Order: sequence, then structure tokens, then C-alpha cells
Amino acid sequence: MTKILAINAGSSSFKFELFNMPEETEIARGLVERIGLSGGKFTLNSEGGREIIERDFKNHKEAVNVMLETLVDKKIIQSIEDIDGTGHRVVHGGETFTDAVVIDEAVTREIEKLSEFAPLHNPANLMGIQAMMELLPDVTHVAVFDTSFHQTMPESSYLYSLPYKYYKDYRIRKFGFHGTSHKYVTNRAGELLKRPLQELRLISCHLGNGASIAAVKAGESLDTSMGFTPLAGVTMGTRSGNIDPSLIPYIMEKTDKSAVEVLNVLNKESGLLGVSGFSSDLRDITEEAKNGNERAELALEVFSSSIHKYMGSYAARMGGVDAIIFTAGVGENSALIREKVLDSLEFMGVYLDKKTNNETVGIEATISHSYSPVKVLVIPTDEEVMIAREVLRKIA
Amino acid sequence: MTKILAINAGSSSFKFELFNMPEETEIARGLVERIGLSGGKFTLNSEGGREIIERDFKNHKEAVNVMLETLVDKKIIQSIEDIDGTGHRVVHGGETFTDAVVIDEAVTREIEKLSEFAPLHNPANLMGIQAMMELLPDVTHVAVFDTSFHQTMPESSYLYSLPYKYYKDYRIRKFGFHGTSHKYVTNRAGELLKRPLQELRLISCHLGNGASIAAVKAGESLDTSMGFTPLAGVTMGTRSGNIDPSLIPYIMEKTDKSAVEVLNVLNKESGLLGVSGFSSDLRDITEEAKNGNERAELALEVFSSSIHKYMGSYAARMGGVDAIIFTAGVGENSALIREKVLDSLEFMGVYLDKKTNNETVGIEATISHSYSPVKVLVIPTDEEVMIAREVLRKIA
Repeated sequence: MTKILAINAGSSSFKFELFNMPEETEIARGLVERIGLSGGKFTLNSEGGREIIERDFKNHKEAVNVMLETLVDKKIIQSIEDIDGTGHRVVHGGETFTDAVVIDEAVTREIEKLSEFAPLHNPANLMGIQAMMELLPDVTHVAVFDTSFHQTMPESSYLYSLPYKYYKDYRIRKFGFHGTSHKYVTNRAGELLKRPLQELRLISCHLGNGASIAAVKAGESLDTSMGFTPLAGVTMGTRSGNIDPSLIPYIMEKTDKSAVEVLNVLNKESGLLGVSGFSSDLRDITEEAKNGNERAELALEVFSSSIHKYMGSYAARMGGVDAIIFTAGVGENSALIREKVLDSLEFMGVYLDKKTNNETVGIEATISHSYSPVKVLVIPTDEEVMIAREVLRKIA
Repeated sequence: MTKILAINAGSSSFKFELFNMPEETEIARGLVERIGLSGGKFTLNSEGGREIIERDFKNHKEAVNVMLETLVDKKIIQSIEDIDGTGHRVVHGGETFTDAVVIDEAVTREIEKLSEFAPLHNPANLMGIQAMMELLPDVTHVAVFDTSFHQTMPESSYLYSLPYKYYKDYRIRKFGFHGTSHKYVTNRAGELLKRPLQELRLISCHLGNGASIAAVKAGESLDTSMGFTPLAGVTMGTRSGNIDPSLIPYIMEKTDKSAVEVLNVLNKESGLLGVSGFSSDLRDITEEAKNGNERAELALEVFSSSIHKYMGSYAARMGGVDAIIFTAGVGENSALIREKVLDSLEFMGVYLDKKTNNETVGIEATISHSYSPVKVLVIPTDEEVMIAREVLRKIA
């Protein structure tokens, strides 16, 4: 039995999940909040129930230490030596990391360097890595990148139509994100369809507060909607997705904002929130639309049509599609959005079973008709299991 | 017989074409260059041959005057009273002009006001209008807008996922361009297919130095690739098309350019020119790609794949497609680009006849196989005839 700990570290928090592998059974999961701040809180869920410890944590190392001690205290593990490997979510792997990688000093330096592309995320991810490496020096630590899965994209997908020197000098290109999730659900789709990934053309819709679509052919990402950053692509909770680039200087002039301030508007005040005017949460918006709120209805239309277009676009990219997958908060739970996204796609072989769709909330299901040439699947994502699998593969 | 003059005025030049309507026969066409500069030149083509007058023109009025006098001198018309109407291309009609309109003072004021959206074009278009109105005060003058055709787009197509107040306060939305061309070729497609436009779902690809794609359902624009400005959408000669909006602040920081300077790079140094590094002209790039130039090959791939994606996207938007139309310089002449744009679209019913495609250069033709459910048409565009038709409709 191999015990693997999957970690997702933010700048003042981290989530973890402990697995028995290869069984993929969860032994414990938890969360540390407000690291480095007052009002710190550690929450642990396991078979024994929920444990909450309220205390302050000076830094990530202290938080990780408390987590490890509690796992032993509660007899979830016998000793910290039981842990065979850790896997760390790292947002940006640039062009360097095309796969998960065992972490050594060169790797941490490179992750640090890639912070330029993900200034909010990579440094936070590194804090988790460093704390874990210090406390578990004899264990294999693996970095799993949100971007790696998309490194198979061809130039025609990842290159912008900008002066080529911007790519050469600054690595300006499409990277794509949510790779761990797209990889998990597309692998799972292969299992559910009982067909080798090699034969499949899949469109994966990760629709959460952030949202991205991926065209996955023969198990490899061929294209994806997010870009150099996670701002690009479809409408999201608070992000604009694609807009006419001319609008940035135009909005700067009209509102007397700097480029960075406008970017902040695009990231934090746009998307569903911007259009609806009251919420970034699709559940609120769906509710209000039912009550006849026109701006809520409009937000639903704008959001779903931004995704809808990718169905055709990525089918074209792959010469057709075998299955469409919905995952993450909205994708797993909103039958309404799934129906809108799949509207009028019979011409490409998509026949939604509306009844099954309506009954499917947060569970794995096939929601297309049995006669539909294109299968439509709802697959709850599990990035933590995917991370644990990558670690297992690396320590095997 | 009704004589109508179609005008396309730039800031230091204008093109004109004189038609007998409704026969749509061209009586003369010409060009005035370097208005307000030294080295002015007037070129007139008619049945009588080509006339070139080299002289300077103080302003648009003087240039128009010389044009009218020459038309009479050469007996192309008996007197200027023979002209029954003029039609003026105007780039931006905003949300005000959903159709061509007879020009009066209120209209010129509004076109002037809309210069905010098209600071390079609308003022130049107005110079042509004003010169013509002064010299032909008793004639009906009609403005024909590049944007009008797209005013039928629904909110889900034209609204950006930005704070809604940007739309309310600044009219920030997708307008779309090339409307006169898209209208002309889709009308012509209806004739060629011998089917009422009302029944047809068309994808119109206007591929010139600027390029835009339109989804036209029942004769109305449902969506288009250009946006608030003509920068958005697909890769063009020197324009980037869509990019991750985050890249503007990023490039500003990396290159120490202002937002406006970066915008200039996106408009003038990107697209085919940016990727290839040597030309914005598809003919040069095609030639170099044949010679094994990898960056030329890459430019072809990036360009065609940016258009290819719209084939699926707009088919999805319309629930399928009946015909795809290629027009403008590249669309009419490049069999290579047409083939790449239509690659692997059999799943949506597109079967290109490669032989006919290769033989079709600058002429009207059906280039799909006879058994192809989706027809593919090459239709040379004729914006001048379309303008003359709009004038005829308005003076009838």
C-alpha cells in the first residue's frame, strides 16, 4: 500500500488529500486556512470524523507540521514515514515541464523562474513544496503542472499572430490551464466509453468559476480556450474571456484607468458578474433568471453561447467529435447550462437526453441518447486523484 | 436608366464607380490619389480606355469636381445632372444606422459623432460626402455602412462579458465590419443556390488584407468575427485578431511601450507579417512556403487554422450550414487557403472538390463536390454594386 499526499498550496492556505494508492481510496483530506495571519484554522476530515484546530500558523512549514502531527495523533498514519510521496499542484510549468516531475533543487529554481508567468500562484505553490521537503526530506516530492497537459498543442494552436520575436524573446504563447482536470476527465471518459483514448476525439468542458474547454485527440491536448493566462477563452465567473484587444486602450481612455487597472476589471469585475451586475455565481444567476431578471437571463445567454461556439470549433479542429465531457462546479451541476451549450448540435451528431440531463447533478452519467453518435458525459473531476496518480507513476 | 455613383473616400484618396442601374452595368470607374498632397493623380477607366490626369488637388471637393468634369468631357455622361444618386461607403454606423440612409444634415452630424469609433475612417468618408453634396446639391446621397448588416446580431453575439455599464455608457460591443461585402456575397449565394435566403444558413469568409467571417442565417448576420474594431477575430495581413487580453499589459511591461503603441503593433506588425517576419501578403508567403521557408509555412498554418475554427463555430451557432462562401483577395484567389480552411469538415457535410478548387482563381464557382451537402462557393465580392443597389432602393 502506497500512501500519497496531494497538496494544493495557496499563499495563505493549503488543501491536502491523503490516498492509498493504487486503490485511490481517500484516507483523509483537509484544509489549513489563514497561514501567516491571525485566526488560523486547520480542518481534517477522515473516517474518524471531522477535527478542527483553531490556532495561528506562522508559515507554511508550521502548518504542514501540524497537519503531519495530527495525522499521526489521530492514528490516520502510524508515523510520518508512512507517507511514500507527495504531489504538488503547480500552476505554471511554462514550456519547461511537459509532464509531472520529481522535485529537486533545479526544479524548484525553474518553478521560481516561471513565477513571472503566474506571479500569484507559483510562489505560493513553492511555499507548500518547500515546507514539505523540509519536513519529509526522505520522500519523493512531485510537481504536477496545470499547463503540462497542453504542451502537446501544435504551433498552430499555441502561437499568437504577434511579432514572432515576442514568442522567441518572452515566450508569449498560449499555455492553457486546468490540465490536471482535463487529463483526469478525458482518461475517465475512455474508461466509461470502453475505448482506447488513442481512438477518441473529446471535447472537455471544465466549467467552474474559472472555465476552459479543451480539444483532446488521442489523449493529447490539441487546443484549449485559455491562453497565455487564465483570462482568455470563454466567459467566466468574473473574467471576461476573449474580447477585442483594442478595448483595453479604449477603456483606459474612457475610464482613466491604467492598463493594469483595466486588466483587473477584466479579471475581477467581468464575466457573469459584469453582465448580470449582481453575482459571479451561476446558481444565483439561474435563480434570478427564473424570477424574470433580464440581465440574469442575458448573463446565461452570453456565458453559454461563449462555450457553445467551442463545441463546433473544436469538432472542426479534430475532424469530428466522439464525446463531450462536462466537469467542475457548473459542468457537473447545471443541467440548464449543459442544455444551452449543446443546443442545435444535431448536425454534428449530438443528441442530448434532456430527461437524464435534468436528473444529473454532481454525479457521473451519460446524458446523451443511446442513439447519439456523440456521447455526452458528466464526470466529476478529481484533480487530487490525478495528482496522486502522477506521483505513483513517478515513484514506481 | 438610373445612373448611380458609388464612392469610397479615404483621407487623401477616393475610389468611384459609375453604374447604370438596375442593370448594374459599369460605365466608368476610377481613383483619385494624393488629395491635399503634391503629386496628385486622377485615373479614369471607361469603355473609351484609360485616362490619367496628373495634377494636384487641394481637397476632396476639387478632386470630385475634376472627376465630374472629366466624366462630362469624355462624354461618359452628358451633364452632371445625369447622375441620379450617389452612394458613400461609411465605415462606422454604430447602433444608429441599421440600414443605408439618405444623407441629410442630421445624418452627417451622426456620422461625425461616430468618428469616435472609427477615427481614421469616418472623417475621411465624410469628406467625400460633403464634397459630393456641395457639387451635386439636387441629388440624393446615400450612406452605406460597413456595420449596418451586422446590426441584426443578438445580444449574445454582440455583448462582451464586461461590466454592463461599459455597454450602456460607452457603447462597447461587437459591431462587425465588411457588412456590404458579406451582404453582397450572401445575396449572390442565394441566387446561385436558387434558394430563398430565408432558408439558408451561410458562412461568409471575407478574406482580404483585413479578414472577417460572418454567420448569416435567413439573410441576417447572426455573428461575425470582427469586434468593436476590425482588429478582432482571425489572423489578418498585419492584424493579430484575438489574443489573450492580458498580453497587452504584459507586452507593455516587456517592451516599455504604451498601450497605444502596443495596439499599433497588434494592428500593423502582427498577423501574417508578424508570424512570417517578412510579408503581410499571402502570395509572398505562399511562394516562400513552397521554397521551404518554415516561418512562411507556420504563418499559413496559423492563418488558416484561425479561420478553420470559425467554420465549426458558426455551424454550431446556426445549427448547421448550407453553404460556405469565399470572397475578397485571398478568398477568391487562394485555393491553398480554401483547402486548409475546409480541412476535415466532412463531419459537418463539407466535401471539397480539390480539382475544381485548384482551378478556381478570381471567378465565381462552386468548388464542393456535387454530392456535398454543404455547398462551397467562390464569389468575387462587389461592394460598389452593393452600394449602388442600396442607393437605388433608397431613391426608388
